[in-house]
Amino acid sequence: MSIVRPGASEADRFTVGSHTFNSRLLVGTGKYRDFEQTRLAIEASGAEIVTVAIRRTNIGQNADEPNLLDYLPPDKYTILPNTAGCHTAKDAVRTCRLARELLDGWNLVKLEVLSEHKTLYPDVVETLNAAEVLVRDGFEVMVYTSDDPIVARQLEAIGCKAVMPLGAPIGSGLGLQNPYNIAMILEELTVPVLVDAGVGTASEAAVAMELGCDGVLMNTAIALAEDPIMMARAMRLAVESGRLAYLAGRMPRRAHASASSPMDNLVGRRPG
Amino acid sequence: MSIVRPGASEADRFTVGSHTFNSRLLVGTGKYRDFEQTRLAIEASGAEIVTVAIRRTNIGQNADEPNLLDYLPPDKYTILPNTAGCHTAKDAVRTCRLARELLDGWNLVKLEVLSEHKTLYPDVVETLNAAEVLVRDGFEVMVYTSDDPIVARQLEAIGCKAVMPLGAPIGSGLGLQNPYNIAMILEELTVPVLVDAGVGTASEAAVAMELGCDGVLMNTAIALAEDPIMMARAMRLAVESGRLAYLAGRMPRRAHASASSPMDNLVGRRPG
Amino acid sequence: MSIVRPGASEADRFTVGSHTFNSRLLVGTGKYRDFEQTRLAIEASGAEIVTVAIRRTNIGQNADEPNLLDYLPPDKYTILPNTAGCHTAKDAVRTCRLARELLDGWNLVKLEVLSEHKTLYPDVVETLNAAEVLVRDGFEVMVYTSDDPIVARQLEAIGCKAVMPLGAPIGSGLGLQNPYNIAMILEELTVPVLVDAGVGTASEAAVAMELGCDGVLMNTAIALAEDPIMMARAMRLAVESGRLAYLAGRMPRRAHASASSPMDNLVGRRPG
Amino acid sequence: MSIVRPGASEADRFTVGSHTFNSRLLVGTGKYRDFEQTRLAIEASGAEIVTVAIRRTNIGQNADEPNLLDYLPPDKYTILPNTAGCHTAKDAVRTCRLARELLDGWNLVKLEVLSEHKTLYPDVVETLNAAEVLVRDGFEVMVYTSDDPIVARQLEAIGCKAVMPLGAPIGSGLGLQNPYNIAMILEELTVPVLVDAGVGTASEAAVAMELGCDGVLMNTAIALAEDPIMMARAMRLAVESGRLAYLAGRMPRRAHASASSPMDNLVGRRPG
Repeated sequence: MSIVRPGASEADRFTVGSHTFNSRLLVGTGKYRDFEQTRLAIEASGAEIVTVAIRRTNIGQNADEPNLLDYLPPDKYTILPNTAGCHTAKDAVRTCRLARELLDGWNLVKLEVLSEHKTLYPDVVETLNAAEVLVRDGFEVMVYTSDDPIVARQLEAIGCKAVMPLGAPIGSGLGLQNPYNIAMILEELTVPVLVDAGVGTASEAAVAMELGCDGVLMNTAIALAEDPIMMARAMRLAVESGRLAYLAGRMPRRAHASASSPMDNLVGRRPG
Repeated sequence: MSIVRPGASEADRFTVGSHTFNSRLLVGTGKYRDFEQTRLAIEASGAEIVTVAIRRTNIGQNADEPNLLDYLPPDKYTILPNTAGCHTAKDAVRTCRLARELLDGWNLVKLEVLSEHKTLYPDVVETLNAAEVLVRDGFEVMVYTSDDPIVARQLEAIGCKAVMPLGAPIGSGLGLQNPYNIAMILEELTVPVLVDAGVGTASEAAVAMELGCDGVLMNTAIALAEDPIMMARAMRLAVESGRLAYLAGRMPRRAHASASSPMDNLVGRRPG
Repeated sequence: MSIVRPGASEADRFTVGSHTFNSRLLVGTGKYRDFEQTRLAIEASGAEIVTVAIRRTNIGQNADEPNLLDYLPPDKYTILPNTAGCHTAKDAVRTCRLARELLDGWNLVKLEVLSEHKTLYPDVVETLNAAEVLVRDGFEVMVYTSDDPIVARQLEAIGCKAVMPLGAPIGSGLGLQNPYNIAMILEELTVPVLVDAGVGTASEAAVAMELGCDGVLMNTAIALAEDPIMMARAMRLAVESGRLAYLAGRMPRRAHASASSPMDNLVGRRPG
Repeated sequence: MSIVRPGASEADRFTVGSHTFNSRLLVGTGKYRDFEQTRLAIEASGAEIVTVAIRRTNIGQNADEPNLLDYLPPDKYTILPNTAGCHTAKDAVRTCRLARELLDGWNLVKLEVLSEHKTLYPDVVETLNAAEVLVRDGFEVMVYTSDDPIVARQLEAIGCKAVMPLGAPIGSGLGLQNPYNIAMILEELTVPVLVDAGVGTASEAAVAMELGCDGVLMNTAIALAEDPIMMARAMRLAVESGRLAYLAGRMPRRAHASASSPMDNLVGRRPG
C-alpha cells in the first residue's frame, strides 16, 4: 500500500459521505458535570463532529428543559445523532427517523445497537439489520461495531459511509485491545474507519491514528479525566500527532542499535 | 503522590540544574541528510535543547568545515554537548572538558559511556565513575543510563542534574521495553527523569510523558522517518499531548463498560 | 467466582455434551508430511479428540485412497468431523449430515463457517444460522466463532455444546490477540469454552488454560513446528500445566518486591 | 544460531560448572507454611537444586532448632546456598564462606547482593565486586543480576558459572518485564542463563524457556499459590514444556491465515 501525503499547501481533510471536516477527533456529550463544562471541553478538543444520544439528550424534544444545542450551536458543530440506548434494529431505525425530524432532514447518523451485556458490545446481527434499513431509507450511516473484520466488510457492502470498530468496551478506558483486527479492517475497507470506544488516554488515541485510522471517537476519556478541559487539549494534540506520524512514515524497527536485522530475528536460538 | 497542575496563567516549565525551558522534547543532530534538513527538522520539533556529539560533529574544532552552530544559532538553541563515542570514564571526562572549552565555559553536558556491545547500552560502572569526576569538576550532568532503578538512584546521589534512562537501544525504534522500571525510577528520584533512546513513533513519546517523565530525548525516530520534518511536528505534539494527559489525570480503567471493578478482577475463575 | 478443585482421588475430567474426556488438548490432522507423521504427533500430544475436515480428508468416502481412520483407530480417538471449507450455513449443514452418515450416526461435530477473507475468520451470521439448524437436527455442536462475547452468548442460547473462540487467525501462530474478550466469554457461558486457532507455541496454550478455558484446539502449531512430534509433547505438557496453574490459584501480583499494593498503583504521579 | 537437539536416546541435561542436572527448575524454600509443606512442594516440582538463604534458614547453625536439611536430604537435592539478606560485597563474601564451612567444602553458591530498595533489585556494582572475590576464592558462582546485558557480560568475563537475570522484582509475580534484554543476554553469553525472580504463573516460566533460557529459579510463585503443591506440579510441566517447545522449533508467525508475509508488514498504510 502506498500513502498519499498532502502537499505543503493542502490540508489533510477527512471526508465521510457528503461531508468534509478538518478535525479527526469526534466527541460525545455524556458524563460531564453540566452543559457548560461540556461546551468548554468540546471547544478545547477542536472537534467538529459532536455525537448526541437522541434518547438521552434534549435537543428540542422537551421545550421546557435546557437544550444542548444552545451550548453547541449547529453553525459551529456538526451534530451527529446516535442511537445509544437502542437494543434492537427496530428501535434504532425509529430513533434515527426521529432525529432526522428534529434536525430538519439531517441524515448523517451514528448507528449503534448495543447488547444488554455489561460490555455494552454491539449486537452485530441487529446492527447489520438496522444498517440495511437505514441505508435504503437514505441515511448516511456511520456504524459502531465490533472489531470483527468480516462484519466490518459486510457493513461496508451494505453501504455504510464509515465503519467504527470498538477499541475496548465503551467507558472502560482500556485502550486498543486488538490492534491486529483494526489493522485487518484498515487493509480492506475503502470507507473511513474510526476507532470508537475504549481509548483512555492520549497515547492510545495516537496509536489508533498511527495504525492508519481515519479518526477517533471518544467521550469518557475526556469527560471523566480529573481535568476534562486539559484532557480535551491532550486528545486534540494526540490525534493530530498520530495522524502526522502515520503520514510521515515511521523509522523501521531494529533489533539492535546498529544492526539492520528485523525484530523477527530478535530471539536467537542456541544450543542447550 | 499528588500532582501540581500549573494554573491557567502559569507555564508548565521544565528545569534542569540552573536552566529552565519550555519544551520537553530534546533532540539530537545525527543521521540527517545535511545540516539544512537538520535545521528544518529541529525547528519543526520545537526543541530548545539540541544535543551534539562532540567527537563527531564540527562545532568549531575544524575551522575549514561546515560548522553546525551556523545552522543552530546558540541564541535560539541550548547546545548540549554529549560524549557519544566514549567507551571509558576517562574518555568521557576528557570530552566534556573539551566541550567546555569550545563552548566558552558552558557546563551543562550529557554524559554517555557506551559499551561496545551492539545494543549500545551504557556501561553503568564506567558511567558512575565518570559522573563522579564530572560533578566534582563543576559540570551539570545529564546522564544516559540503563533503566536500572538502583543505578539511577546512585547517579542522583552522586549529584547528577537529570537522569536519562533508555527506553530501548539507541536507534532501534522499539519503544519503551520496560515501563515498570521507568515508573520505579520516577517514584523515587527528585531530579528530572527523561527517556533517552528507543522511541520510534509519536505514541511512544506520549507514553513516556504519561508515565510522568519530565521529557524525552530522541534523534533517529525523527531523522530516519520518511518525512523527518513532518515527524518532528508529530513528536512535538506527542510530547505536549502526553504531558497534558499526565497533568490532566486520566480516567480510571474499568474491566466492564458499566462496572466499577478494577482490571485486576478481570479474569474470573470458574469451576472446571 | 469460586473454583472447584478436584480432590486428590478425582480426575479433572472435561465433559462436552454427552461425552467425557481426560485430555483438554484437541488436535487437527492437516499439514503433516504424511499419515504416519500425523499418527506419531497425535500420539505424542495425548489428545483424545481429533478433528477432521470432512471435505478434505478421506475417512472412507474414497475407497481406493489411504483412509485416515486406519491410522487413528476410532476405539482410541474420538473423531470430531468439522466443516472446514464451507462458506455458507447450507454447505456446513450438508457436510455435517454427510459426516453423520459416514460415521454411523455419530453426532458430535465441529461447526465452522469461514468467510473467504484471508484471515479465515468465521462469518458469524452464517455460523449462527447453521448452528440453529444443526441443534434442531439433533447434533451436538462445538462451534468455532470470533471472540465476540455477544455472539458467543447467542451460540450458547441456541444450544451449542461448546463455544470455541479464535485466539488469532487459523494458522497464524500469533497467540491470543484479545485475552480480554476470552475472559468476558468465560465469565458468562456455562458450556465449555475452548480456544480454537492462533496458538503458536507452548506458553500460549498455557495462557489460554490459565484464563480458565476448558481446552485448546490446535493444528498448525504442531504440524509446522520444525519437530512436530517434540512440539506435540510440549503442547501436551503446556495444556496440563496451564490447567493445573489455573486450578492451583496463582499468587497475587505485586508492584514492588515487598509491598502489598496492587499493580494499579504502579505508576505514581508526581509534580512536574 | 543453530540449535542442537538431543537425539532420541540422549537426555537433555543441564550443566553448570562441574555439576550436571536433569531438571531445569530451581526452587527456593521461603514463605511456605512449614518445612513439611516445603518438602511436599519441592518434591512435586521435580527440582534437583534447592536454594537456601544461609542467613535466614537453619541448616545446622542452630543445633536446637528444626534443620531444613532433615526435610531435604542432600543425597536427593543439591543445596545451593544463597546470600539473601546481604547488601554489600563484603557481607556476601562472608556468607558464602560460612556456607562452605557448614556444607563441608561445597563451593557452588548463588550470589545475590540486593539493594535496600523496595524492588529488591541487585546492586550491580557490589555484585560485580563480590563476584570477583568469590571466583578468585574458588567458588563456582551462580549470580543474580539485573537484566542489563552489559553487566551480564561482565559477570561472565569475571568467571561466573551461570548468570541469572531477574524477570521482575523478587516476589512480585509480574512475569518477564523485558524479554528483549533476556534475549540480548542469551545471544552472547556462553555460560547458562536462568531467569531468577518475577515469574508468577506457569505460562511465564514457559516463556522464559522458549526464549532459550537454560532454566528458571522461583520461590514465591509456588509458595504463595493457593495450592502450592499443585502449582509446583504446574511449574514442573511448564519448564519442561517451554524447553521442548524451544528445542522443537516453533512455527513461523504469519500475519494472515494464508499469507506468507511476516508480521512486520501487518499494518498496511493507506491513503488518508
